[in-house]
Amino acid sequence: MLTILNSVKRVIVGRALRNDRLSHTLLPKRIALPIFASDALSSVAYAPDEIFLTLALAGVSAVALSPWVGLAVMLVLLTVVASYRQNVHAYPSGGGDYEIATENLGRFAGLTVASALLVDYVLTVAVSMSSAATYLTTAIPSLHGTQAIVAVVGVLILALVNLRGIREAGTVFAVPTYLFMISILGMTAVGIVQWLTGTLRPSQSADFTIVPVPEFDQGLVGLAGGFLLLRAFSSGAAALTGVEAISNGVPNFRPPKSRNAATTLLMLGAVAASMLAGIIFLANATRVHVVQDPATELLQDGRPLAADYIQTPVIGQIADSVFGAGSIAFYIVVAATGVILVFASNTAFNGFPVLGSILAQDGYLPRQLRTRGDRLAFSNGVLALAAGAIILIVAFDADVTRLIQLYIVGVFVSFTASQLGMIRHWTRELKRVKDRGVRVRMQRSRVINTIGFAMTATVLVIVLITKFEHGAWIALLAMFALFLIMWSIHAHYANVARELAVGDDVSARALPSRVHAVLLVSHIRKPVLRALAYARASRPSRLDAVTVDISAEETAQTVADWEKLGIPVPLTVLASPYRETITPLMDYIRNIHRESPRDLIVVYIPEYVVGKWWEQLVHNQTALRIKARLHFEPGVMVASVPWQLKSSEEARRLQEL
Amino acid sequence: MLTILNSVKRVIVGRALRNDRLSHTLLPKRIALPIFASDALSSVAYAPDEIFLTLALAGVSAVALSPWVGLAVMLVLLTVVASYRQNVHAYPSGGGDYEIATENLGRFAGLTVASALLVDYVLTVAVSMSSAATYLTTAIPSLHGTQAIVAVVGVLILALVNLRGIREAGTVFAVPTYLFMISILGMTAVGIVQWLTGTLRPSQSADFTIVPVPEFDQGLVGLAGGFLLLRAFSSGAAALTGVEAISNGVPNFRPPKSRNAATTLLMLGAVAASMLAGIIFLANATRVHVVQDPATELLQDGRPLAADYIQTPVIGQIADSVFGAGSIAFYIVVAATGVILVFASNTAFNGFPVLGSILAQDGYLPRQLRTRGDRLAFSNGVLALAAGAIILIVAFDADVTRLIQLYIVGVFVSFTASQLGMIRHWTRELKRVKDRGVRVRMQRSRVINTIGFAMTATVLVIVLITKFEHGAWIALLAMFALFLIMWSIHAHYANVARELAVGDDVSARALPSRVHAVLLVSHIRKPVLRALAYARASRPSRLDAVTVDISAEETAQTVADWEKLGIPVPLTVLASPYRETITPLMDYIRNIHRESPRDLIVVYIPEYVVGKWWEQLVHNQTALRIKARLHFEPGVMVASVPWQLKSSEEARRLQEL
Repeated sequence: MLTILNSVKRVIVGRALRNDRLSHTLLPKRIALPIFASDALSSVAYAPDEIFLTLALAGVSAVALSPWVGLAVMLVLLTVVASYRQNVHAYPSGGGDYEIATENLGRFAGLTVASALLVDYVLTVAVSMSSAATYLTTAIPSLHGTQAIVAVVGVLILALVNLRGIREAGTVFAVPTYLFMISILGMTAVGIVQWLTGTLRPSQSADFTIVPVPEFDQGLVGLAGGFLLLRAFSSGAAALTGVEAISNGVPNFRPPKSRNAATTLLMLGAVAASMLAGIIFLANATRVHVVQDPATELLQDGRPLAADYIQTPVIGQIADSVFGAGSIAFYIVVAATGVILVFASNTAFNGFPVLGSILAQDGYLPRQLRTRGDRLAFSNGVLALAAGAIILIVAFDADVTRLIQLYIVGVFVSFTASQLGMIRHWTRELKRVKDRGVRVRMQRSRVINTIGFAMTATVLVIVLITKFEHGAWIALLAMFALFLIMWSIHAHYANVARELAVGDDVSARALPSRVHAVLLVSHIRKPVLRALAYARASRPSRLDAVTVDISAEETAQTVADWEKLGIPVPLTVLASPYRETITPLMDYIRNIHRESPRDLIVVYIPEYVVGKWWEQLVHNQTALRIKARLHFEPGVMVASVPWQLKSSEEARRLQEL
Repeated sequence: MLTILNSVKRVIVGRALRNDRLSHTLLPKRIALPIFASDALSSVAYAPDEIFLTLALAGVSAVALSPWVGLAVMLVLLTVVASYRQNVHAYPSGGGDYEIATENLGRFAGLTVASALLVDYVLTVAVSMSSAATYLTTAIPSLHGTQAIVAVVGVLILALVNLRGIREAGTVFAVPTYLFMISILGMTAVGIVQWLTGTLRPSQSADFTIVPVPEFDQGLVGLAGGFLLLRAFSSGAAALTGVEAISNGVPNFRPPKSRNAATTLLMLGAVAASMLAGIIFLANATRVHVVQDPATELLQDGRPLAADYIQTPVIGQIADSVFGAGSIAFYIVVAATGVILVFASNTAFNGFPVLGSILAQDGYLPRQLRTRGDRLAFSNGVLALAAGAIILIVAFDADVTRLIQLYIVGVFVSFTASQLGMIRHWTRELKRVKDRGVRVRMQRSRVINTIGFAMTATVLVIVLITKFEHGAWIALLAMFALFLIMWSIHAHYANVARELAVGDDVSARALPSRVHAVLLVSHIRKPVLRALAYARASRPSRLDAVTVDISAEETAQTVADWEKLGIPVPLTVLASPYRETITPLMDYIRNIHRESPRDLIVVYIPEYVVGKWWEQLVHNQTALRIKARLHFEPGVMVASVPWQLKSSEEARRLQEL
């Protein structure tokens, strides 16, 4: 089974590639920015839409508040950037939020952050690919209605590409990211010039009237109004996801690493904030109207819209106003946005397995996943991430607005924990450092991180309150489940380590007095002869061959064949009144152990090495069951003597690939 | 995983029981009859219905031909009984049709019969349980419409009971079978007396008018009419299934075995024929009208029936006429019929695994299934049979009429092959035997088997022609698939046997010159110490300990711990530039093999024996992958040194149960 799966995998996925290539080349800022920025920048593709359509629930007067909401988001964004610049200086090792939280706040906080980050990686893929699918339907309207399929196919392709291994050349990332930055910022510039000269056309949805939902027919008033404003803000805060990426990547920067990373972070913040500001400004200037449900919330000339009306995302509508719907510039903007969203998903495909291997290294995930260089860990991570994202996309029908309700909780859990950790970090450092200049700088950093903590904690509370019932509970539940699983694995490993620690107990070190070899014989064939030869070569104190008498006829044949070999090893025939293999054998082995408990019993089992999965079904099954049972016996060691069938050669070649 | 499954299995299925109990007690005829007869007798519960409703397609005048069809079925039945009486005398070993066909006609014919029988066992369960469900709804009309669910639940219960193991006390079988025989034959007797005295009431469906389907609005005329008559006959031939059961059971009879078995067979034939005749007679006498689709084929006073009309099976309608619908006698008849159908299914649950183990013994199924005493083979057979039957029941919505189209093909394939085999058998024997008296008896037997062959072959052709497009093709396809699978397995085993035969090739017997032991070390814990102790106890020519350097920190710790132990075995650290375990290790092992190809390399791998399935996921994964890869290396033997974690003790106890 494994071999066939492996062959299929090889054909589709190709030769194993080394995934640590990235770490061998140090990146200049101009390459590092696009590599680490795609996730953070791409959120500008959906964050403004979410602000607008949430506010639109309370009608057009509420939408007028969108610049203020945008401003609040930018404020938080810049605060977080400022805070992470401190992280970068304090942890040039690239310790992510998980390490900062673990080191400063303890294992519990660290694992909470890890759970949050894992869930958020999954959501990054789900949200980004769903949004990318929306942009694809903007470019090709005939695809409308198939976003979920498009997004799932996108995730599958991305997973496959990652399983195959990407040689992450910085330039591959640089081109689309820069194209995206240029096209959005360029569009903003052109739009502002048009606005100043009075030539900016209104958007395709400018003439629509927004019908507020019944709950808000009085507009944004009272507690509910304030609540809606906060909800719009927390949806807009999706623009902050991915900001932490640079702080994980410090070791990849050219020296001076920390300074370069901090500068890049600042550049990222500036670009992201400008884009957000530009989009929100132009959306207001062109009177873009986007709502959650166009069929009920929009009117044109007092009548509901045509049934086939497809709502274009904000960036698409602005590009339409600025450049015209059919123009090349329009398609460049939409395509660049779609591509950057795919690259943002890809960031998650890189980050998720790495975090997984760090967690495995710390004993929170199965230990075999810890070697990052090993393809197993990486592949499992990629597959788990893709599966999670696909489940979410299908469950929420690739609806970005609904998915975004689950998003950000995780990011802000990790932001908040990380900032709190940094405050602790500086406080600890301040106790140690005496140099006045350094202390002043540290105190300044601590103030910044404290502001960052206050800000992110506030946003976290807002997000929890406004989104809990809209879907955040699902994300929290997933985090909690992951937390429990990882905590249990860690506790289990700790228990085992205690159980197995080499202490004064000498029983494990005791040398067995003698070696009693037992060779399992069924038919006399080459594998049995090889096992016999190996057993004899090991020169045991005593060597017995045994066969279980299941069929009198076969046993007679076996005994006759054995005698014909003329080997000075006696063949014991074990009676099996119920024509059963395992019980007589176990009784025999236990008997030996009872008689001389200090002996080591080595059971030699000839095994067929087969090439095809179904061959495994017709061979070795009894051997496997015997081995499984023998493992429970004290003082028994199982020696598998493999015999490679001809068919195994091909399987071997496939494994070598 | 296995352990948890095992525990669940133990709880549900209970302690393993010995299934060969049956063969330890020899049966008198009065117990043997009910044990082997339930399958054959039970078909009277649905065979008459199928004759009537098939004829009804051509209207009421066609139904009048039912006695003739019944007579033809009885004729075939008695011929088959007479033929199998010869089998019983010739093969007192209980060789079933599979053995008779294999021995006399060769492997190809034998495997064809085996495939046919396997498919037919599945159909026996599907048809009998579906029919039983119909009888249950006759007793409890509110269950109407849920037959498929009832039948599936019935199969599941039967599977569970069989997995748990039945102590097949003859009396358990005797009571319901005799009750069934008495109730049906008693009802017939009472009915005939009532008919003679003119007190037999007409059936509940006596006043209905049958509307022939458009194709037959002219009645039973022409080729199509003859064809329909033959179809009715082949459906009625379902009454013959199970007749062969006694011939498989000869060894279980009291001596003189063959004679007693032959007598029992004759009794069975007489009872089955009487029942069939009685039911068909009374159905005509009470003017029972059953059709395939009551909604379109029946009229009452010229109008279609009420939508909620539920068609009662023929036996139910007769019992209603003879005893009255609410009477105790009515319920006894219906209940006895339902129960006998369940017992008929159970016959298949006994026969299927036995045939499977015989086929495994002959190398047509995976060899590990061949030990009948082993629960594995038996359980797998029970599960496969139940799964097949459930698929059929669900696919055909427990509709006996549609299922019966698939049935009988297999039975008649095996009847025909068996009779042909018997002709060959007698011809061969006649060449050998000189005694005149014996020769006369043999010639008589050969004549009977020849008649049997001609008859069953004719029926087989009729069944194939009339039922092929109605569903028999599915059964044939399944047989063909089974045939191919079993043929391939046999060919594979033959190839392997040739490849592994002990010939002049001495390579397998060559004693390796020296033993080079390699101990895999990760952390220095008790399991490693035990593996080291075992390796040293085996006194290899050379012993190396190796560890793969995945994390510099961990490796340093390992080396330090190793040195602290003060053991005179060097620890080799293998570099792993890509933080990967297997490649460096394989390179190291291959290097040893290249340097001294005549050495035996024994790789000692410490293994954790765990108790819970998820523990297997977090331990040993790397060890398993290393073992799998090492098995492909020539000259390498893998020695697993188990360390039983505390949690394994419970798992061990469960395995002991």
